[in-house]
Amino acid sequence: MTDLTTKVLTGDPHAIARLITHVENQDPQAITAMKTLYPHTGRAHVVGVTGVMGSGKSSLLYELAQSYRKLGKKIGIIAIDPTSPFSGGALLGDRIRMTELSTDPGVFIRSMGTRGALGGLTNAVYDVVDILDAAGMDLIIIETVGVGQDEVEIVKVADTTIVVTVPGLGDAVQTIKAGLMEIADIFVVNKADRPGIEQTIAELQSLVDLDGDRDWKTPIVPTSAKEHKGIDSLIDNIKQHTTFIHQTHLYEDRRRIRYEAELFELIRKRVISYVLDDEKLKNQVETCLQKICGREQDPYTAADEILNALLK
Amino acid sequence: MTDLTTKVLTGDPHAIARLITHVENQDPQAITAMKTLYPHTGRAHVVGVTGVMGSGKSSLLYELAQSYRKLGKKIGIIAIDPTSPFSGGALLGDRIRMTELSTDPGVFIRSMGTRGALGGLTNAVYDVVDILDAAGMDLIIIETVGVGQDEVEIVKVADTTIVVTVPGLGDAVQTIKAGLMEIADIFVVNKADRPGIEQTIAELQSLVDLDGDRDWKTPIVPTSAKEHKGIDSLIDNIKQHTTFIHQTHLYEDRRRIRYEAELFELIRKRVISYVLDDEKLKNQVETCLQKICGREQDPYTAADEILNALLK
Repeated sequence: MTDLTTKVLTGDPHAIARLITHVENQDPQAITAMKTLYPHTGRAHVVGVTGVMGSGKSSLLYELAQSYRKLGKKIGIIAIDPTSPFSGGALLGDRIRMTELSTDPGVFIRSMGTRGALGGLTNAVYDVVDILDAAGMDLIIIETVGVGQDEVEIVKVADTTIVVTVPGLGDAVQTIKAGLMEIADIFVVNKADRPGIEQTIAELQSLVDLDGDRDWKTPIVPTSAKEHKGIDSLIDNIKQHTTFIHQTHLYEDRRRIRYEAELFELIRKRVISYVLDDEKLKNQVETCLQKICGREQDPYTAADEILNALLK
Repeated sequence: MTDLTTKVLTGDPHAIARLITHVENQDPQAITAMKTLYPHTGRAHVVGVTGVMGSGKSSLLYELAQSYRKLGKKIGIIAIDPTSPFSGGALLGDRIRMTELSTDPGVFIRSMGTRGALGGLTNAVYDVVDILDAAGMDLIIIETVGVGQDEVEIVKVADTTIVVTVPGLGDAVQTIKAGLMEIADIFVVNKADRPGIEQTIAELQSLVDLDGDRDWKTPIVPTSAKEHKGIDSLIDNIKQHTTFIHQTHLYEDRRRIRYEAELFELIRKRVISYVLDDEKLKNQVETCLQKICGREQDPYTAADEILNALLK
């Protein structure tokens, strides 16, 4: 594993991919590797990109990655969105473009399943961000669908969060109101070549104006991945937000939230492993489950009992 | 709270709604109520309905609920899908129909946010299922979007899981292959009036045929909520699946998985509360976080330290 971490630190894509697989499989060696890599992390800027399906996030990311590459930046992309071409979903044309991108040694793409991740997706994402960071990526982009609590949890690890919408997507603004508003640092209205763009921008603007007290006024950036428009403006806005969070200690605050979430998630996970590894506790769980199934005990009382046996 | 639980047991919708709010707010009184209600649970059949956005799940649920009402069944609907009209998303016409449904005293509808649920959505859903069960609902339907780990976790509480797709939805079958296949007890191809229906059915059929070893052959039910077609066949298939799981002990197995998940989730949650309520542990977390932010300690080592102080 020492050899592997050394290779990860040089940015070797095969080593990165292998270590991520170890992390996903909860290989105990991965923990040792993560401990070794940790002092080398903290340099990359993490960008979360979220938005409903059909908002063209992937094409946008493709354009964004291309533009960053021209600026000489190394990019890591973590795709959580199951409909993303990065994740093997979506249409063939998109997928071909992604393959194109992935042959560039300055780009590392990893798709992570929302299903089947042993021990929870959130922790694995934290680790992958740290791995890509230690491997020298300047920018790490996490692509998620803007639904589901996991997705919102994942966005918490980002320094800059971009919420993507499109004109005329029914109640897009409604959805944003419902929960994405507070996490958006930048709004992107993609497919800006479509009719209804002015109205969508105006609706978003009134949302932003309502939230008048914030020091950072969430900018609204119209883009058209198809027509290669607005990407430079988006990059500029990401840069401005980066400067803003570093000037205002928001950067430290967000990192702190991220590490707290990561720490608590590790504790949660390890507690269950501890229970399952201890023969006596495991038997107690078994007895409780039998009682719960027979309605002789409720789950809350059972949890109390097990915690009493578990905690100091 | 005793008064409230008594009222919940009579099926009083206001009492049900109030208790659910207590549960969502993690009101300590809610735990007492849940303990009291628990012996009265275990009778309702729980149906999970999942599928991509745009598959017309909500219209289908509307038709399904209407038909069950004609059979004299009491129905609880838990909408997790943020785009669902039950959750306040989607189009006005749909929402009007839902309002119509919700004035029927035999139907209880509750929308639950995937965002902002204190202490995690999954646990709250377990509790709401138990509340509706204790309140005398015959059938509890949980509607989710088929993406995100939380959604799949939620489906785990269901006795029967229905995966909804529609003809011509790009890589719909691809998505199902990727993760929904193993959780589907019934496939519904909604909007069966659309072109491409035969092909979608054929593709699904070949997926089902591949999975040849299972005792339960996942049926494929074409429906058209718009034309009120296929609903009776769907109800019939749900009934057959219900009989099947009771005959094969699959019912007990699934309930056991559900209670185990519920129990572990409670333990995870309580451990973190325990840490935060203990001044000494809280300070230790604080010290660790400072070290993590300063790259003097990695999160894994920090978690080890805190667990050592925490566990017997």
